[in-house]
Amino acid sequence: MSERVWTIGIVLYPGFTQLDATGPHEVLSRVPGARVLLLSADGNAVCSESGLTIEVTTSFADAPPLDVVIAVGGPGVNAVLTSDAHTSFIRRTANTAEYVVSICTGALLLGAAGLLTGYQATTHWLAMDFLRDFGAVPINERVVIDRSLLTAAGVSAGIDLALVLAARIAGEAAAREIQLMIEYAPQPPFDSGNVEQADADLVEKVRVARNRMQDVRKQQVTRAVMALRAPSK
Amino acid sequence: MSERVWTIGIVLYPGFTQLDATGPHEVLSRVPGARVLLLSADGNAVCSESGLTIEVTTSFADAPPLDVVIAVGGPGVNAVLTSDAHTSFIRRTANTAEYVVSICTGALLLGAAGLLTGYQATTHWLAMDFLRDFGAVPINERVVIDRSLLTAAGVSAGIDLALVLAARIAGEAAAREIQLMIEYAPQPPFDSGNVEQADADLVEKVRVARNRMQDVRKQQVTRAVMALRAPSK
Repeated sequence: MSERVWTIGIVLYPGFTQLDATGPHEVLSRVPGARVLLLSADGNAVCSESGLTIEVTTSFADAPPLDVVIAVGGPGVNAVLTSDAHTSFIRRTANTAEYVVSICTGALLLGAAGLLTGYQATTHWLAMDFLRDFGAVPINERVVIDRSLLTAAGVSAGIDLALVLAARIAGEAAAREIQLMIEYAPQPPFDSGNVEQADADLVEKVRVARNRMQDVRKQQVTRAVMALRAPSK
Repeated sequence: MSERVWTIGIVLYPGFTQLDATGPHEVLSRVPGARVLLLSADGNAVCSESGLTIEVTTSFADAPPLDVVIAVGGPGVNAVLTSDAHTSFIRRTANTAEYVVSICTGALLLGAAGLLTGYQATTHWLAMDFLRDFGAVPINERVVIDRSLLTAAGVSAGIDLALVLAARIAGEAAAREIQLMIEYAPQPPFDSGNVEQADADLVEKVRVARNRMQDVRKQQVTRAVMALRAPSK
């Protein structure tokens, strides 16, 4: 559409879910004029939930202004919800970014940065209830767009969101070309990809198995909400 | 299903397409009892086509026996088609592996290792014609299974293949649970994900833009086929 360069930053932290980042990276790095940066607080490589370690482009301190800031999710998000380094960086970059984006439970990090209040948003199905804690309106859709805020459901939804974003940045023709190059005509072999389709027994099994993690997450969300309300913020 | 440990190795090289590796890694690292290794010839981190760099677990020399060997694709595959280090390693590991897998143009690397002769297979749509050079029968499907050989179409098809493989390794219930956790109920915003769906003009535009890369690939495939026919092999 134009010769504008878009600087897109994906914020990583230990224990992130790598497909939350790598899916959108694969799509967005193919957008004409886009430059995709991988960021971590200290600029060091970051180990994901699954042990796959990704090198990063720059630390928060050395990051250039971002046109798009993307918060990814994963079990590790719990810890960074109360990390001032992370919430401050997200808040500061979002202030001047054209789009603020989350994949999966990256939405909680946006919430902890105070960026969800009054917005419609989505997140991983296990974390939907936490959106209200941050003043958001949970919407059970795969990609939710509310003004400059784009949020995706769990993990693989980041690919769908990235194609939507690619079309906004470079036009639908460019997005369609990317879709063809990554041959994104998905054919899941099963139909268990969301809570509506999956067997109720499976959903319940997964919920129970994550009870303890959910308790920790609840505590962290509560702390993050309190920090947002503190006078210093 | 059992307490067996499955050792799964994903073979990387410079210029690989990262989603070819990271999509299956996200799925397979969640398989109960599976251990997913990332491999490069020298054990050093590998920079993908898009500039995203992934650290690897081990070099070819230090790799343990693999139950599953996965060859990924990308522009960089052209160079390794004539790399004895890569084709020898793939051939050696495939010899004792239970499953031999390719994503995208990783199929060409399997071909260069002599593993496609007489097999049905698929690859990225731009590379389908090269399968015949390696004695394979090209099948225009997203995931093709022929005995112990599993091949996927371009890039994102690796996620679909990985769920199929997860079901084979750990049973369908485990695969469905993984699908639910990564919320894989895709909703591509456009319908240009394969040659059948995309506009003919777009397909032609992409073909023309890749003409030079295709010429190089053709030369490399020819060299690889000649190497397979050489008496020393």
